[in-house]
Amino acid sequence: MSRYFSSKYDNLVPYVPGEQPQDKKYIKLNTNESPFPPPRSVFEAAKEEARKFYLYPDPDNTAITEAVAKNFNLTKENVMMTNGSDEALNYAFMAFCDKDHPIVFPDVTYGFYKVIAELNGIPYDTIKLNDDFTIDCADYSGIGKNIVIANPNAPTGVALSLAEVEQIVRSNPDNIVIIDEAYVDFGGESSVRLIAKYENLLVTQTFSKSRSLAGARLGMIMGNADLIADLNTLRYSSNPYNISRTTAACGIAAMNESTYFHDSCSAIEFNRRYTQRALEERGFTVLPSCANFLFVRSEWISGKELYVRLKDHGILVRHFDDERIRDYNRITIGKKTQMDKLITAIEEIYKEIYEPEE
Amino acid sequence: MSRYFSSKYDNLVPYVPGEQPQDKKYIKLNTNESPFPPPRSVFEAAKEEARKFYLYPDPDNTAITEAVAKNFNLTKENVMMTNGSDEALNYAFMAFCDKDHPIVFPDVTYGFYKVIAELNGIPYDTIKLNDDFTIDCADYSGIGKNIVIANPNAPTGVALSLAEVEQIVRSNPDNIVIIDEAYVDFGGESSVRLIAKYENLLVTQTFSKSRSLAGARLGMIMGNADLIADLNTLRYSSNPYNISRTTAACGIAAMNESTYFHDSCSAIEFNRRYTQRALEERGFTVLPSCANFLFVRSEWISGKELYVRLKDHGILVRHFDDERIRDYNRITIGKKTQMDKLITAIEEIYKEIYEPEE
Repeated sequence: MSRYFSSKYDNLVPYVPGEQPQDKKYIKLNTNESPFPPPRSVFEAAKEEARKFYLYPDPDNTAITEAVAKNFNLTKENVMMTNGSDEALNYAFMAFCDKDHPIVFPDVTYGFYKVIAELNGIPYDTIKLNDDFTIDCADYSGIGKNIVIANPNAPTGVALSLAEVEQIVRSNPDNIVIIDEAYVDFGGESSVRLIAKYENLLVTQTFSKSRSLAGARLGMIMGNADLIADLNTLRYSSNPYNISRTTAACGIAAMNESTYFHDSCSAIEFNRRYTQRALEERGFTVLPSCANFLFVRSEWISGKELYVRLKDHGILVRHFDDERIRDYNRITIGKKTQMDKLITAIEEIYKEIYEPEE
Repeated sequence: MSRYFSSKYDNLVPYVPGEQPQDKKYIKLNTNESPFPPPRSVFEAAKEEARKFYLYPDPDNTAITEAVAKNFNLTKENVMMTNGSDEALNYAFMAFCDKDHPIVFPDVTYGFYKVIAELNGIPYDTIKLNDDFTIDCADYSGIGKNIVIANPNAPTGVALSLAEVEQIVRSNPDNIVIIDEAYVDFGGESSVRLIAKYENLLVTQTFSKSRSLAGARLGMIMGNADLIADLNTLRYSSNPYNISRTTAACGIAAMNESTYFHDSCSAIEFNRRYTQRALEERGFTVLPSCANFLFVRSEWISGKELYVRLKDHGILVRHFDDERIRDYNRITIGKKTQMDKLITAIEEIYKEIYEPEE
């Protein structure tokens, strides 16, 4: 840290993304990416649009905003496009939270919420998940604080029902409720349909998972037009041209590929059920997941050791060294061949430990 | 404004980018873009890289950071890549300014500085430019505050010498000096070579102007490794994957096209001299510019009226309705054919006013 760094960041610990090793080829089941490349129309769109790179993008991001709005039966005034949904979350925290308006979120959830609260000097509280890692929506009802909930939750994959989300939103009319739906397309129920009914609801989604565009950096936040206008005030005050031309063009192309999108999501859900069963048969406890990952623990190997040994076998999964979830690993659902390699590796690891050859 | 918007933004007035009309075709001389499309290798790189869009980018942006560092004879620890240089400036303000560490900048300069100071609750002061719109570097010497200066300045195009910048940096050792070099490649002297000597210097540059990549969103901030580490702390705490895969790949391709880059800059400088002479011959006062734009006023037409009439003629220039510069327009330097059309339009406007046909 330099001697010039503002003391307001004394307690700031940056977010640590999952490993993105550039050196060696791994089976990457650690950052919840799609295993499916984007369809051809997407990378053709990238090339065509890159010819216009000498011109700034439209700062209103009109075309991609309208495409997304149409997809969700909203108007463009209900949508702001962002450089990944992390940017959307940061803007929402900045806009609606401050010293007098703290935020709460589950104790086990996306680690980024805590970081952006610290970054922006926003007081925050966490609410303990139930022992089975479900959220008790009564804990969030009428609490009079801003709330952010990932639904399905990460890294657990466990989802709230639409009725539960609605109870939380309805019972906190003077506070903002942010539902982070990064993983909703793999079996969750989206809260977007509640936007017309509640002025205090914001929903974030991303193109990074179900639409195979993690590398393009495209997310969105949806809500009441007045909230979106506030968010645009901040966007225009920090980075008016936040989305590149190719990213917007690829987003539009991806939105038009609805069959590819649905097929990708179905394949992930199929492979998730397949992997869950295979892991349960091999002594794992698997939380019920509505996401493109499983959160799993085993009686016969610690979370940390499984992570390390899988890495030795060329497979990356995500381990969090936090008290309540230390026994677990988060495993992204990839292609079936990748999941078979995972299962084979786990069988080999079992043998290495319990049936070592002399 | 919604009733949920934090009161900390009560005085925030968002930045207004130059018009980017999506409806009609204009000759765009209003946002300082390059008139030259990126070379073929750039849009080929976009297409190739977009195939990998299902995977996140490298959050360290290693490859593009190394390419930029090499270009400037720095190490990668001296460089952070950003989503346009606006993002770099915002991070620098966030990192090194706070209630106890205000920032100063010229009264006539890039309008974004004031906005990001307001956004982040940072006290700021402005220092009046000389009557000829030059910066008096004595005004900034030993003032004991953080400083940001665009060099060449915008919207004037007037540049400081390297010796003047060095005096400012050297005389404020306990404060950060940010030199915004968005336009330096068109005839300015870069301060990058001072980085090895001063631990309090930060230099921002962009791919948006001289490298024909405004639509790709790529900028950078360079300085002492400790300062860059602080900036990375903030980047990892707000948007760790801030640059898309295609943007990084196109940036690397653009860096390899050094002949194209130098030829583009030379063409702009040639067209700038040509346009300056043509405007002076037609009754304009033109500030001496080291940028890809001219800041001009006329005795025979007001700044606002020229802007409006040029727009009627299908040409966009930038007019700022601020007291000291209301008489001026900022005119981006385009291709010679575009500048000829500008000059013809100005001649026609003169006739419309002074020699109207009955």
